[in-house]
Amino acid sequence: MRGVLGKDYARQNCAMARTLEVVGERWTLLIVRDAFYGVRRFSDFRDHLDIPRAVLADRLNGLVEEGVLTRRPDPDHRGRDLYELTPAGRDLWPVLNALMAWGTQHRVRGPRRRFLHAGCGTALDGHGRCPACGVTPEAGDVLMRADPGASRRDDPVARALREPRRLLEPLSV
Amino acid sequence: MRGVLGKDYARQNCAMARTLEVVGERWTLLIVRDAFYGVRRFSDFRDHLDIPRAVLADRLNGLVEEGVLTRRPDPDHRGRDLYELTPAGRDLWPVLNALMAWGTQHRVRGPRRRFLHAGCGTALDGHGRCPACGVTPEAGDVLMRADPGASRRDDPVARALREPRRLLEPLSV
Repeated sequence: MRGVLGKDYARQNCAMARTLEVVGERWTLLIVRDAFYGVRRFSDFRDHLDIPRAVLADRLNGLVEEGVLTRRPDPDHRGRDLYELTPAGRDLWPVLNALMAWGTQHRVRGPRRRFLHAGCGTALDGHGRCPACGVTPEAGDVLMRADPGASRRDDPVARALREPRRLLEPLSV
Repeated sequence: MRGVLGKDYARQNCAMARTLEVVGERWTLLIVRDAFYGVRRFSDFRDHLDIPRAVLADRLNGLVEEGVLTRRPDPDHRGRDLYELTPAGRDLWPVLNALMAWGTQHRVRGPRRRFLHAGCGTALDGHGRCPACGVTPEAGDVLMRADPGASRRDDPVARALREPRRLLEPLSV
């Protein structure tokens, strides 16, 4: 997968630069975000992201090559695949949470998606920590709850995400 | 500043998408990273990032417009400016820490930069938390310490960053 920053960037010997080579590419973080939301099928990523088919195929291939997603045959749809986060992919949760927390604090007004500690229902802070329990839950212990009107989209994935759901729980639409 | 994802992306009503519009752009996160390292002068950003002059000027202007950096005249260099993180810019620290932690865990081998709680010298975890104290320090309470050989670069900024230093402490090279 071509990194967003091109070859000049290779001279930046920095852990952040290396991460951006994996997920800094156009659309890639939105695909990873949707994988955390439980999206697993090509057609669901496409419908929810309005991403051109060829671009989506390329980015999914790249994420599989980079060890962020795995691909396996979909038992329910012959000839199709399911994409799921690897353990390394799940380790990207703090990146996504930090990006979303900054956007929530500084850019988004009005209804939005909230990320709660599933164990107690308290909203996580920008570091992914539950202020009530003092723990920093894994993505699978995070509950996503959208305020009414948080998404203007009306595709099947967007409709399914209106209900509260745990991250990583496979989405069936 | 043009967002990395173009106008299609505007349909993604998501706090992460809004954040990527600000910092997801080519080179932008590296400029923000250097600002956390204490870089404040145009020429220092340019020398450390090998970024073309016009691109750097455009990205700095964008970050000022977006409220991530402030610009003020450099008292020591007539006609030049200093760029410094605003409070909103400093709030990007969890994003940078999470990106660097993932890269450190999954991509970088060998010598690297370490981010420690200045109060006790313990390495922060991927959520920016000090495991010894249980606190999540602000960027100004984070000490950066590079392993010998962590950077292959040899510009003045890279040399200055070989010494342990607190984040946000103005760099003089």
